Amino acid sequence: MNNGFIIKELGKREHKSPLELQTWAQEDVRILIDATIHNDNSDKSVNTLEVSGPHRRLFFNPAETKAAIVTCGGLCPGLNDVIRASTMVLWHRYGVRNILGIRYGYEGLVESYGHTPIKLTPDIVEDIHQKGGTILGSSRGQQNTGEIVDFLEKNNINILFTVGGDGTQRAAMEIADEVGKRNIAISIVGIPKTIDNDVAFTERTFGFETAVALCQTPITCAHMEAKAVRNGVGLVKLMGRDAGFVAAYATLASSDVNLLLLPEIPFTLEKVLEFLETRFEEKNHAVVVVAEGAGRNIIESTGTDKSGNVKYGDIGVFLKEQIKKHFKSKQKEVNIKYIDPSYIIRSAPANANDSVFCFQLAGNAVHAAMAGKTAMVVGLWNGQYVNVPMEKTTSTRKTVDLEGHLAINLLDNTGQPPLV
Amino acid sequence: MNNGFIIKELGKREHKSPLELQTWAQEDVRILIDATIHNDNSDKSVNTLEVSGPHRRLFFNPAETKAAIVTCGGLCPGLNDVIRASTMVLWHRYGVRNILGIRYGYEGLVESYGHTPIKLTPDIVEDIHQKGGTILGSSRGQQNTGEIVDFLEKNNINILFTVGGDGTQRAAMEIADEVGKRNIAISIVGIPKTIDNDVAFTERTFGFETAVALCQTPITCAHMEAKAVRNGVGLVKLMGRDAGFVAAYATLASSDVNLLLLPEIPFTLEKVLEFLETRFEEKNHAVVVVAEGAGRNIIESTGTDKSGNVKYGDIGVFLKEQIKKHFKSKQKEVNIKYIDPSYIIRSAPANANDSVFCFQLAGNAVHAAMAGKTAMVVGLWNGQYVNVPMEKTTSTRKTVDLEGHLAINLLDNTGQPPLV
Amino acid sequence: MNNGFIIKELGKREHKSPLELQTWAQEDVRILIDATIHNDNSDKSVNTLEVSGPHRRLFFNPAETKAAIVTCGGLCPGLNDVIRASTMVLWHRYGVRNILGIRYGYEGLVESYGHTPIKLTPDIVEDIHQKGGTILGSSRGQQNTGEIVDFLEKNNINILFTVGGDGTQRAAMEIADEVGKRNIAISIVGIPKTIDNDVAFTERTFGFETAVALCQTPITCAHMEAKAVRNGVGLVKLMGRDAGFVAAYATLASSDVNLLLLPEIPFTLEKVLEFLETRFEEKNHAVVVVAEGAGRNIIESTGTDKSGNVKYGDIGVFLKEQIKKHFKSKQKEVNIKYIDPSYIIRSAPANANDSVFCFQLAGNAVHAAMAGKTAMVVGLWNGQYVNVPMEKTTSTRKTVDLEGHLAINLLDNTGQPPLV
Amino acid sequence: MNNGFIIKELGKREHKSPLELQTWAQEDVRILIDATIHNDNSDKSVNTLEVSGPHRRLFFNPAETKAAIVTCGGLCPGLNDVIRASTMVLWHRYGVRNILGIRYGYEGLVESYGHTPIKLTPDIVEDIHQKGGTILGSSRGQQNTGEIVDFLEKNNINILFTVGGDGTQRAAMEIADEVGKRNIAISIVGIPKTIDNDVAFTERTFGFETAVALCQTPITCAHMEAKAVRNGVGLVKLMGRDAGFVAAYATLASSDVNLLLLPEIPFTLEKVLEFLETRFEEKNHAVVVVAEGAGRNIIESTGTDKSGNVKYGDIGVFLKEQIKKHFKSKQKEVNIKYIDPSYIIRSAPANANDSVFCFQLAGNAVHAAMAGKTAMVVGLWNGQYVNVPMEKTTSTRKTVDLEGHLAINLLDNTGQPPLV
Repeated sequence: MNNGFIIKELGKREHKSPLELQTWAQEDVRILIDATIHNDNSDKSVNTLEVSGPHRRLFFNPAETKAAIVTCGGLCPGLNDVIRASTMVLWHRYGVRNILGIRYGYEGLVESYGHTPIKLTPDIVEDIHQKGGTILGSSRGQQNTGEIVDFLEKNNINILFTVGGDGTQRAAMEIADEVGKRNIAISIVGIPKTIDNDVAFTERTFGFETAVALCQTPITCAHMEAKAVRNGVGLVKLMGRDAGFVAAYATLASSDVNLLLLPEIPFTLEKVLEFLETRFEEKNHAVVVVAEGAGRNIIESTGTDKSGNVKYGDIGVFLKEQIKKHFKSKQKEVNIKYIDPSYIIRSAPANANDSVFCFQLAGNAVHAAMAGKTAMVVGLWNGQYVNVPMEKTTSTRKTVDLEGHLAINLLDNTGQPPLV
Repeated sequence: MNNGFIIKELGKREHKSPLELQTWAQEDVRILIDATIHNDNSDKSVNTLEVSGPHRRLFFNPAETKAAIVTCGGLCPGLNDVIRASTMVLWHRYGVRNILGIRYGYEGLVESYGHTPIKLTPDIVEDIHQKGGTILGSSRGQQNTGEIVDFLEKNNINILFTVGGDGTQRAAMEIADEVGKRNIAISIVGIPKTIDNDVAFTERTFGFETAVALCQTPITCAHMEAKAVRNGVGLVKLMGRDAGFVAAYATLASSDVNLLLLPEIPFTLEKVLEFLETRFEEKNHAVVVVAEGAGRNIIESTGTDKSGNVKYGDIGVFLKEQIKKHFKSKQKEVNIKYIDPSYIIRSAPANANDSVFCFQLAGNAVHAAMAGKTAMVVGLWNGQYVNVPMEKTTSTRKTVDLEGHLAINLLDNTGQPPLV
Repeated sequence: MNNGFIIKELGKREHKSPLELQTWAQEDVRILIDATIHNDNSDKSVNTLEVSGPHRRLFFNPAETKAAIVTCGGLCPGLNDVIRASTMVLWHRYGVRNILGIRYGYEGLVESYGHTPIKLTPDIVEDIHQKGGTILGSSRGQQNTGEIVDFLEKNNINILFTVGGDGTQRAAMEIADEVGKRNIAISIVGIPKTIDNDVAFTERTFGFETAVALCQTPITCAHMEAKAVRNGVGLVKLMGRDAGFVAAYATLASSDVNLLLLPEIPFTLEKVLEFLETRFEEKNHAVVVVAEGAGRNIIESTGTDKSGNVKYGDIGVFLKEQIKKHFKSKQKEVNIKYIDPSYIIRSAPANANDSVFCFQLAGNAVHAAMAGKTAMVVGLWNGQYVNVPMEKTTSTRKTVDLEGHLAINLLDNTGQPPLV
Repeated sequence: MNNGFIIKELGKREHKSPLELQTWAQEDVRILIDATIHNDNSDKSVNTLEVSGPHRRLFFNPAETKAAIVTCGGLCPGLNDVIRASTMVLWHRYGVRNILGIRYGYEGLVESYGHTPIKLTPDIVEDIHQKGGTILGSSRGQQNTGEIVDFLEKNNINILFTVGGDGTQRAAMEIADEVGKRNIAISIVGIPKTIDNDVAFTERTFGFETAVALCQTPITCAHMEAKAVRNGVGLVKLMGRDAGFVAAYATLASSDVNLLLLPEIPFTLEKVLEFLETRFEEKNHAVVVVAEGAGRNIIESTGTDKSGNVKYGDIGVFLKEQIKKHFKSKQKEVNIKYIDPSYIIRSAPANANDSVFCFQLAGNAVHAAMAGKTAMVVGLWNGQYVNVPMEKTTSTRKTVDLEGHLAINLLDNTGQPPLV
């Protein structure tokens, strides 16, 4: 059981770690080298996922297949990579010649909007991955499921790829249900899109790594602006509605952040202001990163958006105003520079690593759809591409575990105190 | 067993896939959602890996611990991140105050070279991750194991972090053996460094993703140069001695490559020249990417380097000359532009994603060492940081599986024919 | 007179140009190849400028000279380059060993603030040009001239380099006046800093070209965001209080802008809204760039800032709100994304071309100061570095000439209609 | 005459400058604020240049005009900008509808090569400036002037824009001569292209600033590689056949270069090796930048290229070998890393500042051509766009003046000793 890599006199191991943690490495927990299971009889839907890949027998006859791709919700680096790769694999690998690009999200699947789809070919998509955005356009909000399935039927569409977040995949699941009820054969395969990286049952979503990389410049700039004045605050609002992964990884990569506020980390305004006062005494400046979904306990909601998400006031603007007000009331100088780089990040092209990921993700989405899979999304899990039932992927979300190692790394990195 | 996501009339699944593959997705293969094993009695050293992380009880008393870090071999993005993070975690988390940066690789652990170590503190390492290279310097080649252990003993070093490739970790294993023989308590913990990403039992090595990203510009430039002239060839040599992952991923991310030559892909010079002739007739230009270790069957070895690796002639220069010669002999025009970006890539700073990875890797190396682990390296496996015995990690190497999905993606992407 | 490069049958030149211009190239206007004048007796202060450069005889004895550098106002790429180059030239070329970096702008020259200057040496400044911001810190607003001169006298400062904009150089002129009145020998030499490039008698100010380059990404992102939705507007606010050079050059470089609003271009809100309505009918989206000082006729002033500049409401936010309101009232969809990249640009490091410019500018400032010049700033004019009296440089400002070729290029580039 | 900016007690100016220069600032030399001359009777062809710009009366009737654009020689950032802007201005400003893009340089103007020109329209050129290279292709070498004029006549081309270097413009002058002899009305207007920035009578050539910027990364990488090993040399070969401006400005911008070798700076191999030995003793590493045309006294010529330029052996490879050989013979360690980034720089897209420059340069070329100018190139001089007779522009070249301020800045910056 000794793997040959423990110092012999382990009996002397008698020093208490100075770390204050809730979770420690456990000697009896190990990682399987091979996480694949063959011919297992356990309840597969509970603790395993189907492996993605090309199938020997197809459900659809490529020569007669008509596929459509729709991109929904906000921009995310990699959308054009996904459109490009789906088209390329359908066309070159399977010989599918009818590929439609649906315009402006689900709107484009409702006849009354009158958005004509684009015919997608390798020539059209060849270079699109070099630009950000989506060549198809997008929109937010729900459309009538029945009307969408009418559109699919009327246009003889056999496969629909739905590229979008939570709401998009929930709507896709409803489309698949309605397709099932009508007893027609249309495959609905999702490619999860969230810059926040909080989709369950996929280690990673496309655009996330690009976003983390693109957050570095705003954080560095905030640092420079903050250091250049007395009592300078560089305040950067980053992505993260419910999960703070972008802000967390961006902070770890930068190492210039002094205070990190995530949706997962409870904090009071008083503690934030107190932190700044202390910091000014020691260092004259501070870099603060706040995820857009942080501090919902301290700001008010302002209704819901078209996709049904609850809307809140802007935590970045709120903090900027509150910090100004506080120091003014104390007659202390504060120079706050607020940076909100969201649109510069969301509309950027994918970096190399995300491009490769999009290529492989879209390829597996095509393989699944051609084999007749439906009501599923593609994901990456334990190093393998997997097919995840939409029901499963929309049932829960990943968030930053405050007792996990990422959270510990963050506290180490910023050195920030408890904020409640 | 139906996960609710197969189209009902699956009986109709009767079309043969047009893909020509050796490996197909298997319905009965699934991925475990949780690849961790608790209290298992199976042979752990064979099919599982130990989980990394901080331990409640330490082997070394932080107040008395002296740690040293050594960086060996060629440059790789992230070396300074690793030096920085090790120092930060040792200092801030554990309170270790004696941290030495060993100069110029293993040379710095041999007294007769006279390289004085640098004292590492948070102040010194604060911003080093923003620059490429290694602040410690590096060297290639073997040193006498006994002399190294003499140095460690004489300087009262308790922990040695060895940052380097295959050769470095094999030497580290010998150091750990010698330490064991002398019955002294020095922990030897490795952090695998290879820009080629071919270390076994870690999904990823630091610097790899940065390298793939930095290969994009040379490939794009080769494309522009090739297209700008009649019968233009843009030839780019990328990293990859034994495994072609860098060239492979760079090709997938770029989508501009027409011919990819990897160490894993057998090819003859004749087939390469034939490919170019055909390509010129159709397209007037070609982009060729060759990994440095490709084509060993067609060039001669030129001895071994200081680290004992067999050296070969330069495949890039060889191909350039052969292509010129061939077309000259056929009195056809060829305009070849050869780009070898190796040093521009190796000496770059890590990108954001690699920075985070280095931070977490080095943190876990410190946790392991403080707990008295030795003769091991840290890695990432199935989404978790793991401690891998040096014996295991140096016993084999990852290569591109020519029957796997990556290879299929590559052929799809380049459209290149068989080359033998 | 025929320079040998007019087509012979010039008599046939009989076609009217389709261009509608106010200003045409005039055949009888020519450019002097050599704009330098030797031993001229004309009124030099009116139509010529003194050439910069090192002098054979110095006013100050390097061994006894104490120099100080102060950076004032907002951040601008290149501040650290100027600090670095001044220090390097003083130290290495002249042997000056007392160089002070004044903290937080003019505040640092007033004793009661208690900001201790930094001792500048080649070691300290070696790498600072690789980062944005200013290592000295900055502040806005006026300080008492008498107190500043008291500080200079008390600290035996012989040379003061004032790096800043209009207000800074006006204050510097007052310091030079007070120094003159006290009959003491302190040289006050300015280095004009304005990201807006509107300083008179210098072709260029440092940071301007870097800023133009850094505006490209936000404009591209605005384009991507606008195109991705129906009736999308990408609205980007760029620098330019009184002169729109940054927005103008950024627009020319990008070629993606459909509407450009500069301080120099009169426009009404109605015409802007009308333009958008027309544009949506044709193209479904629009990219709008507005300089921060544009539209002062349509927004209200909100007092003055610490430096005495009149403050206005935020034209970017104003336009965003008005556009939303307008289309809502017409029950038409509009999706506006507003990007304000100001701090990301101002705090960036200088690009290569600006770095060289800063090096040469600062070098000439040192040469002038050592030779006893005072109440002057350095500039670039007709390809030569020049010494410009502060009185001259602060007497007027450059703006975009609406009848000049730049303005014509802009209208060509955007295709926008008259806006009044 | 006192401009109010000399310290009063100037009589005390009694200290000798420690600088050792050949050229000093002269008090009696001044710069004209306005370098334009109106209605002057002096010999214009000698000391003045014609101002560029649109003319009220045209020589060619836009509706009947056929224009062609040809790009020759090696790649340079901005070629596509020039193609794009020429097309845009011809089409949108003048209404010209027949615009040909000539393929593969002058080859495309010789019928026997059979290269069909591309029809250029705004749609085709819209985004081409975002990519490097030239969409038209290029070639080197001379073609028969008579055949070219035959082609122009046969295809009814009225205007030919020749984008290329010295050789290209000399050939263009011969074409204009032949056109003159045939007494036909074809305007030949050049746009000088040289990444080396050595064209006479233009302050700047397009692509130069982009090149200087792109040299920064290779120099930084060379620095990192050199510092990472004992006796490390980072050797970078940069552009510059006859003039070292790229290497010079890149060195000034970087400040990491220890030895700079230009075509203009005489040096012996012995002095270079001596410098390295001394440097290793002090600093253990060195960064060396060599312009491709440096050291012609120490390497042999290897014939001439297709354009008639004398070819020399590769000075970078030569130095690398000689340095290795020297230290081997002295049994001293040397670790040399050689970087030749030429193709990565030449094939890059133009940066923002160069894009604007290309736009304005091409616009003025179009204005000149439409007005019937011929045998001229456009340039920038003393801040104005000018028309320069081809005879003048090809008669001489700019080089780095070893007694001028640029050379002094370089010596300051590198600290290198005399090398002969």
